[in-house]
Amino acid sequence: MGTEQVQMKGRLKEDPSAAVLEYIFEPRLKSDVKLLSYFTEVNLAHVVMLLKEEIVPKHDAIALLEVLASIDEGGYIPSEADAKLEGLYYNYERYVIDRLGPRVGGKIHIGRSRNDLGATVSRMRTRELVLRLVDGTLKFRTALLDRAHGEVDTIITGYTHLQPAQPITLAHYLSAIEQAVGRDTDRLFHTLQTVDKCCLGAGALAGTGFPINRQFTSDLLGFEGFVDNTLDAVASRDYLLELLSNLAILAVTLSRLAQDVYVWSSYEFGIIDLPDSLAGTSSIMPQKKNPVVLESTKGRLAHVFGGLISALSAMRNTHFTNVIDVNHESFHLLDDSCYQIQAGLALLGELIGAMAVREEHSASMASVNFSTVTQLADTLVAQGDYSFREAHQLIAAVARVAAENGLTAQQITADLIDTVAAKKAGQLAGLTQEVVTKALDPVSNVRARAHPGGPAPATVTRAIRSARQRLAADGRRLDATQARLGRARASLRLMVRQALLEQ
Amino acid sequence: MGTEQVQMKGRLKEDPSAAVLEYIFEPRLKSDVKLLSYFTEVNLAHVVMLLKEEIVPKHDAIALLEVLASIDEGGYIPSEADAKLEGLYYNYERYVIDRLGPRVGGKIHIGRSRNDLGATVSRMRTRELVLRLVDGTLKFRTALLDRAHGEVDTIITGYTHLQPAQPITLAHYLSAIEQAVGRDTDRLFHTLQTVDKCCLGAGALAGTGFPINRQFTSDLLGFEGFVDNTLDAVASRDYLLELLSNLAILAVTLSRLAQDVYVWSSYEFGIIDLPDSLAGTSSIMPQKKNPVVLESTKGRLAHVFGGLISALSAMRNTHFTNVIDVNHESFHLLDDSCYQIQAGLALLGELIGAMAVREEHSASMASVNFSTVTQLADTLVAQGDYSFREAHQLIAAVARVAAENGLTAQQITADLIDTVAAKKAGQLAGLTQEVVTKALDPVSNVRARAHPGGPAPATVTRAIRSARQRLAADGRRLDATQARLGRARASLRLMVRQALLEQ
Amino acid sequence: MGTEQVQMKGRLKEDPSAAVLEYIFEPRLKSDVKLLSYFTEVNLAHVVMLLKEEIVPKHDAIALLEVLASIDEGGYIPSEADAKLEGLYYNYERYVIDRLGPRVGGKIHIGRSRNDLGATVSRMRTRELVLRLVDGTLKFRTALLDRAHGEVDTIITGYTHLQPAQPITLAHYLSAIEQAVGRDTDRLFHTLQTVDKCCLGAGALAGTGFPINRQFTSDLLGFEGFVDNTLDAVASRDYLLELLSNLAILAVTLSRLAQDVYVWSSYEFGIIDLPDSLAGTSSIMPQKKNPVVLESTKGRLAHVFGGLISALSAMRNTHFTNVIDVNHESFHLLDDSCYQIQAGLALLGELIGAMAVREEHSASMASVNFSTVTQLADTLVAQGDYSFREAHQLIAAVARVAAENGLTAQQITADLIDTVAAKKAGQLAGLTQEVVTKALDPVSNVRARAHPGGPAPATVTRAIRSARQRLAADGRRLDATQARLGRARASLRLMVRQALLEQ
Amino acid sequence: MGTEQVQMKGRLKEDPSAAVLEYIFEPRLKSDVKLLSYFTEVNLAHVVMLLKEEIVPKHDAIALLEVLASIDEGGYIPSEADAKLEGLYYNYERYVIDRLGPRVGGKIHIGRSRNDLGATVSRMRTRELVLRLVDGTLKFRTALLDRAHGEVDTIITGYTHLQPAQPITLAHYLSAIEQAVGRDTDRLFHTLQTVDKCCLGAGALAGTGFPINRQFTSDLLGFEGFVDNTLDAVASRDYLLELLSNLAILAVTLSRLAQDVYVWSSYEFGIIDLPDSLAGTSSIMPQKKNPVVLESTKGRLAHVFGGLISALSAMRNTHFTNVIDVNHESFHLLDDSCYQIQAGLALLGELIGAMAVREEHSASMASVNFSTVTQLADTLVAQGDYSFREAHQLIAAVARVAAENGLTAQQITADLIDTVAAKKAGQLAGLTQEVVTKALDPVSNVRARAHPGGPAPATVTRAIRSARQRLAADGRRLDATQARLGRARASLRLMVRQALLEQ
Repeated sequence: MGTEQVQMKGRLKEDPSAAVLEYIFEPRLKSDVKLLSYFTEVNLAHVVMLLKEEIVPKHDAIALLEVLASIDEGGYIPSEADAKLEGLYYNYERYVIDRLGPRVGGKIHIGRSRNDLGATVSRMRTRELVLRLVDGTLKFRTALLDRAHGEVDTIITGYTHLQPAQPITLAHYLSAIEQAVGRDTDRLFHTLQTVDKCCLGAGALAGTGFPINRQFTSDLLGFEGFVDNTLDAVASRDYLLELLSNLAILAVTLSRLAQDVYVWSSYEFGIIDLPDSLAGTSSIMPQKKNPVVLESTKGRLAHVFGGLISALSAMRNTHFTNVIDVNHESFHLLDDSCYQIQAGLALLGELIGAMAVREEHSASMASVNFSTVTQLADTLVAQGDYSFREAHQLIAAVARVAAENGLTAQQITADLIDTVAAKKAGQLAGLTQEVVTKALDPVSNVRARAHPGGPAPATVTRAIRSARQRLAADGRRLDATQARLGRARASLRLMVRQALLEQ
Repeated sequence: MGTEQVQMKGRLKEDPSAAVLEYIFEPRLKSDVKLLSYFTEVNLAHVVMLLKEEIVPKHDAIALLEVLASIDEGGYIPSEADAKLEGLYYNYERYVIDRLGPRVGGKIHIGRSRNDLGATVSRMRTRELVLRLVDGTLKFRTALLDRAHGEVDTIITGYTHLQPAQPITLAHYLSAIEQAVGRDTDRLFHTLQTVDKCCLGAGALAGTGFPINRQFTSDLLGFEGFVDNTLDAVASRDYLLELLSNLAILAVTLSRLAQDVYVWSSYEFGIIDLPDSLAGTSSIMPQKKNPVVLESTKGRLAHVFGGLISALSAMRNTHFTNVIDVNHESFHLLDDSCYQIQAGLALLGELIGAMAVREEHSASMASVNFSTVTQLADTLVAQGDYSFREAHQLIAAVARVAAENGLTAQQITADLIDTVAAKKAGQLAGLTQEVVTKALDPVSNVRARAHPGGPAPATVTRAIRSARQRLAADGRRLDATQARLGRARASLRLMVRQALLEQ
Repeated sequence: MGTEQVQMKGRLKEDPSAAVLEYIFEPRLKSDVKLLSYFTEVNLAHVVMLLKEEIVPKHDAIALLEVLASIDEGGYIPSEADAKLEGLYYNYERYVIDRLGPRVGGKIHIGRSRNDLGATVSRMRTRELVLRLVDGTLKFRTALLDRAHGEVDTIITGYTHLQPAQPITLAHYLSAIEQAVGRDTDRLFHTLQTVDKCCLGAGALAGTGFPINRQFTSDLLGFEGFVDNTLDAVASRDYLLELLSNLAILAVTLSRLAQDVYVWSSYEFGIIDLPDSLAGTSSIMPQKKNPVVLESTKGRLAHVFGGLISALSAMRNTHFTNVIDVNHESFHLLDDSCYQIQAGLALLGELIGAMAVREEHSASMASVNFSTVTQLADTLVAQGDYSFREAHQLIAAVARVAAENGLTAQQITADLIDTVAAKKAGQLAGLTQEVVTKALDPVSNVRARAHPGGPAPATVTRAIRSARQRLAADGRRLDATQARLGRARASLRLMVRQALLEQ
Repeated sequence: MGTEQVQMKGRLKEDPSAAVLEYIFEPRLKSDVKLLSYFTEVNLAHVVMLLKEEIVPKHDAIALLEVLASIDEGGYIPSEADAKLEGLYYNYERYVIDRLGPRVGGKIHIGRSRNDLGATVSRMRTRELVLRLVDGTLKFRTALLDRAHGEVDTIITGYTHLQPAQPITLAHYLSAIEQAVGRDTDRLFHTLQTVDKCCLGAGALAGTGFPINRQFTSDLLGFEGFVDNTLDAVASRDYLLELLSNLAILAVTLSRLAQDVYVWSSYEFGIIDLPDSLAGTSSIMPQKKNPVVLESTKGRLAHVFGGLISALSAMRNTHFTNVIDVNHESFHLLDDSCYQIQAGLALLGELIGAMAVREEHSASMASVNFSTVTQLADTLVAQGDYSFREAHQLIAAVARVAAENGLTAQQITADLIDTVAAKKAGQLAGLTQEVVTKALDPVSNVRARAHPGGPAPATVTRAIRSARQRLAADGRRLDATQARLGRARASLRLMVRQALLEQ
């Protein structure tokens, strides 16, 4: 029985057709090849387990480990792999059999299937992607807090419905974004828990009759545990959908940040000045300095929705078992989605650090654009006899009169308020000019809002400090996970080396 | 100043146009009205806090609480609400002011905004939806385990790629689904944590200058804490996206279950018989018994993707602050999405309990459709000199010869194996007929797979027991949350009654 | 054989379960009931055909037509319909059999099925929705052109990347939107062609052995033809996906218009003033005038994406035949999607007519914000020795110097240009001040762009005239279609009356 | 002024940051490079127009054309392009200026912008993609009709709701799919009309003051016309959304075909046998022959939904002008979506031609699985006194009795029918055994359905003939378009050669 015949084709008599090779097996092989190191990791763990459980004779296991160790050191170059063998796995196995002959090399696949192998490899790779994404969010949150730290006194207009609402500070704004992205980190950690389970031992879907040790291989590969039910193990990829959903949610938050800065950096708002290094030119309009980073980021974040819908749709209405729609096609846009998010985090992170704030203009806008007048109403409530709704109505009338007369908010006087009050409600408001001036000052406005979560500088400073602590805790959790994985990898290789020495 | 004038319109001089009323304010009011009880809950907590912190004089606070208590008992009927007042809030406030006059009634809105009020109400309602969904998944998992319990010996063919793969049991299948849905419960619990935060005190976006007590209102409303940053509090609805994502993921798993049973209940598979009460007829074809429950469920689960995309798209590229796209429109399909999932859980849950399995046919199919032959290869490996790949190739050739000669798997004999082995590899396989017969028996096939997660009856029985424990723990967590919310509601009312008595 | 037994249940012995009634048949009946008039229309046409082709004896056909004519005049009230009968059809048939007995009433269903009936009804209803949507786009385009007509001299800054680019006019902008929406009308007309085909005669999927006349029923129902292949007729709903896609594309264009006006009506841009009747208030901030129409419209247009994805997903991976996922569930969000688009067209159409342009401010912005300087470069090219790239670079340097020195574009002088030119390229630019002033004037800037499609007032006036002609042609096409349908309806009733008279 | 300085940067002083290069300009350049030939095509047309309209002196135009002609022959290798110059355009222009100096080379950009250039190039490329997709659908329809032609007598069970419904033929089924895909071809032709418009002359968004000739460049580039309004020209990409929508709709139809064959090729249905060249193996289960083509195709078609949602989302809520979200990012998944569709068409087309039908089994299934009994009911109606509903109920009872007694449909006798009729309705049915036997014969069943669109062999043969005529007409339309484009390309080069000769 020739080696090639030994390795594949099962009951099939013909080679794949040209179209099948072009559209299915060649792309699959190409994407598999990126996963070579995971295949080797799993193979090492599987054979170490076969050895420990005495499922394979010691000398055969040692022979297999020798080949695997050489592959682990770069001995196998899959660029020569043959797509007729469907994907990486059969090529890998053929390489082993070429080295050891079918009687020994053919033992590597005892007690398992491509299905549990593939399910495990997908989880190992996704686990790594999740960890990198967590890292990306941590760096981004650091950039937000670093910038916020220096801007606790930088007044900007807070908007609702894109209309001036109340003065806040840039630090208060950036701190809000950081809190939101902190929840994205949380969601990614939850996905880490979902994905961090081993599938080895599930076989094709029904496990195996060999006395395998699922806990042992799970430990060797650094997993937190294994997916118990063997059918569930090969059928489920809900962790992928969870990850893509998390990315879509993060994309939404990032797009909103980008949209804010996009408008703030318009000529008309003029609050933010982007550095030339983050801008683009026009080929025709000499004056242009275009916010390419923001438009590019906003646009690219849309692709993450595409990645999510592609995966959801690929999985929907498939059978709950191992099928290609789920185990392969649903991953098609995963790399792109992760890339777009990492790009967005990197670009916006850089922009947050590098953008210039036109502070004077910003503060001046906040004092003229009527964003301070709520404080006037509150002052009326606090100092006088007005209920809030009465105060609100009076100040609304004052604002209307001021606007109709071309006055800015700063030009509202105690007299004007009294005049309107007299006309509208038959009584004076009774505020002194000093009180009015203070209420209309954006700085005192912001300082007055000092309860937890408010924009007052001291409050935001405290909030940033707390945020840094949460961020540090998240960082420690990431580091601990990476350390665990590193230890598992080192420990597996140590076992292999010991086995090879002991022979 | 007339009451009506007092309550609304701010600086606007005109009523909303007919189109604005028809398309915006009337639908908003209609959807707000369903939230009346939450509005009252929040109003009670807010006024109790204003009283405690002495922001409003005691007699005014008592007066407000009297009106609120009467509303709490059904005293306010919002069907008379006026859409010109934009939504429920102004109508509610007008009702209060009508009762107490603007000087007192106008104090209810001190230290807050519709924005933090609305953000809090949305979270209270979503929290309730999440709890109901958790409950739905628990009931569904119970149905799965109850059925599985009775089917640990019911052989079915396990498929991969919709081709017979290896025998499993119906219990093993249902247990796999239960494990998958258990992860959906986990995700919903994570969303519960995300949503269960109070937004009161965030004001319009910048908090307030009044000395409010955010922790106190949060506790009164049964929240686990409050969203710290005030801008984050009014801007963020990522919990909604998280919930809708979770529903989309659950929809995928349910659709896969439905797809399996759909095919199994075809005339040709004939494994499952649906009761007449879950089937539909044809108006023309007298013989038809159509799986309406399955097609209807599969189809409806698609709407959940629509709900998710609608919300993601509504939020994308909006400003990070209070905007209508986010605080209102992104919720547009939430109820529909929850409904479709609850319908799917109820329909499939009923079907799982009610479907009949054609056991004999099912077991017989598993013994003839070649799903047992992997065990033959494994037996060769375990008993003889074959490596797995050699055994796999030999049995593949045997299967091909058998199929070409019209034999079923059961008709494969030790002789046939030896004949093929001799021809293909120049050696006999050397299995006895007894060993071959046992390997090809679906029941012994299943029994052999007894490692954790495998289909062997005793293993599945243990797995069901563990699953019931996890399910019970989830149930206790749900109960504890509902109890906490109930206590908060009761405690708030007690405080109100005491305040009214003390006056 | 009792009447009730006659009409339904086929081979089923049990009633639908409570969950099936609640989640499937009751909602289906509710949605069917809205289609009653279409059912009657189809029944009339079918029986007239059965009569003409002598498939049913004349007296039986007349009896059936009498009952149908009474239903057509409001004689049947489906509110009493019984969901146990699955949907409207069986209830309708039961009503007929109750009137005529099973021997005659039972003949109404000869040569057809609920499948071809339902497929036809869905097309009739969708055809009507498409016509209403065409009408919506025509009215909206009229609003755009009407407003554009009065604004051919109204200078606004044209932006690219939200940065001032070149001056255009409001008419030029609105005319651009009208051209884009004109393509949406085109797409809807294409969908009209796709949907406007009859499915009667397709039976359950295989036609019928009775000598039916498909062309005749198609003509009676005003269709342009019939779907030939009977399986295609009951299986396909691609017209629905085509319609929803068209709505999604239209939603994108409308959202972009809304986004433009949203930013233009900000305090900072200050180009557009929305009337109070299209604005909302704040409950706390007295100065606010919120663009509720724009945010509400932007947000709601997102739901159309949801409708599209829901239908695409419901249909995907279903069998190509009559299935509930396709024939019922894929229509779930159609009404909502149409509603959101009609709302968007109505709200934005009203806004386009009612918004005020702050013309002076707008023109003044265009003269200071550097949007005119491309004309300066072009002038250099046209008048001097500069190539475009040289001119572009020179003016870019001029713009930078001006901006750094706090000059507006209007303050750029011939001297400044020469100074920069001398320093940068060692030669003077040689423009006179008069030429510079003219180049920097937004009005002459716009007038210079008079080739087809440009913003020059006379050019835009001509473009509007052409657009009105296209619009009128589209209106005639819509009218002709509606007239054809009206004639078919009238003609069918005339035939029925004649048949009843002739008996 | 150095060459490099001449060509770019406008008013920017700094190079792009590393992240901007990595994530924005390098990927953009990479994707631009694929468009080099379109850039050259447009440059040639533009300069020929500048020459004809005497906007550029003859000797300068000739010099430019010489360089462009050399690029057209492969003289420029963009692999050396510099991403600091943002994308291909500036690199291209720099190459020209390097050859001719800034005074002449800098004239290539007179009267245009990267915006109209880019908009035109995108349309040229999309036009080509559309033509290739049309070609793909034509080839696929040919495969369907070719196979259908040989299968007009091949009986298969027609299903509704995946339950046996009525017998049809494989040709009838394939013909239905061909009709559906014919509508996809129609939609692609509509998109061709939408996309086939030139944008040159639109400039940045406001046209240009130079006396350009838009009709002339449009003709030179083979367009059917130009987008009139210059803002519309640079802002709109609705043709992209239209194309992606069409692909999503086509994906749905293809997925349904795949789903049918997927189930038909299961062991249990056993109607279709896939050739080994279109199947895959199992690494563990020796008997497996997996339908990899079908699962892979079903899965990959999901990505087209992702492409659509990505583009819709990228465009939504952007400003109606030239923005990167629209002009670049919305195209991100276009190539992938086209690729997946072309792969699906190729794979399914091959499968349709290569799959084997197990004819005998298929016909035998149709005769036993009760799919023929509707004809029995129709026969009762046609021959006896029964109304359809009565006949339907009687035969439903017969079917139930038969099924409960383990009879197949073929075993239903005239006696059995009479027995049930007597019991149920107190009268005999009165059919002879000969009539019953004929009604229950799938072949005569199919033959009886001979009206237009029915499955009768002669009818389907006629339908295939008509379909071939439509297909041929579509082919001629495609050929004519490609010929027009070829003529335009040749004619443009002829003009260039003549200009170069005339100098």
